[in-house]
Amino acid sequence: MLGVQIIGFVAAILTTVCWLPQALKTLRTKDTKSLSLVTQCVFALGVALWLIYGILVGNAPIILANSVTFVLVALIVAMKLRYG
Amino acid sequence: MLGVQIIGFVAAILTTVCWLPQALKTLRTKDTKSLSLVTQCVFALGVALWLIYGILVGNAPIILANSVTFVLVALIVAMKLRYG
Repeated sequence: MLGVQIIGFVAAILTTVCWLPQALKTLRTKDTKSLSLVTQCVFALGVALWLIYGILVGNAPIILANSVTFVLVALIVAMKLRYG
Repeated sequence: MLGVQIIGFVAAILTTVCWLPQALKTLRTKDTKSLSLVTQCVFALGVALWLIYGILVGNAPIILANSVTFVLVALIVAMKLRYG
C-alpha cells in the first residue's frame, strides 16, 4: 500500500501547489477577465468545507492541503472581485 | 458522524461541479488569457492521480468526483492550449 499512499500524497501536493502560479500570474497581470467568478467562489466554498471536514475527522493531510489551497484561492477570488 | 459525512459529500460536489461554469465560459468566450497554463496542467495531472488513487483504494466517491473534474479540467486545458 506504500505506493498507493505515495500516489495520494503526490496528488494532494499537486492539487494544492498548482494554485500558486495562478495567484502569482493574477497578482502580476491584474487580469482576471477569463476567470469564472462562479467557479472561483464555489471552489473556495468547497475547499473551506473540505477544511472543516478535515478538522472534524482529525485528518492532518486534508487540513494542511485545504488550508494552503484556501488561502491561494481566496486571494484569486479577492483579485477577481477587485479587477473584475 | 452523519453530519460530518454530509459536509464531506457537499465539499466533493462543490469542488467538482464548480469547473462547469469555467468550462462553459471558456467555450463561449474562447478567452483563456488570464488562466495560468501551469496551474491548469498541474491541476489536471493532480486530479488524474487522485482518480488513480481512488481506483487503487476502491473508493467510489473519489473515483466519481475526480472523473467528472478531470473531464472538465482537461477541456479547459485543451482550450487554453488552442486559444493561448
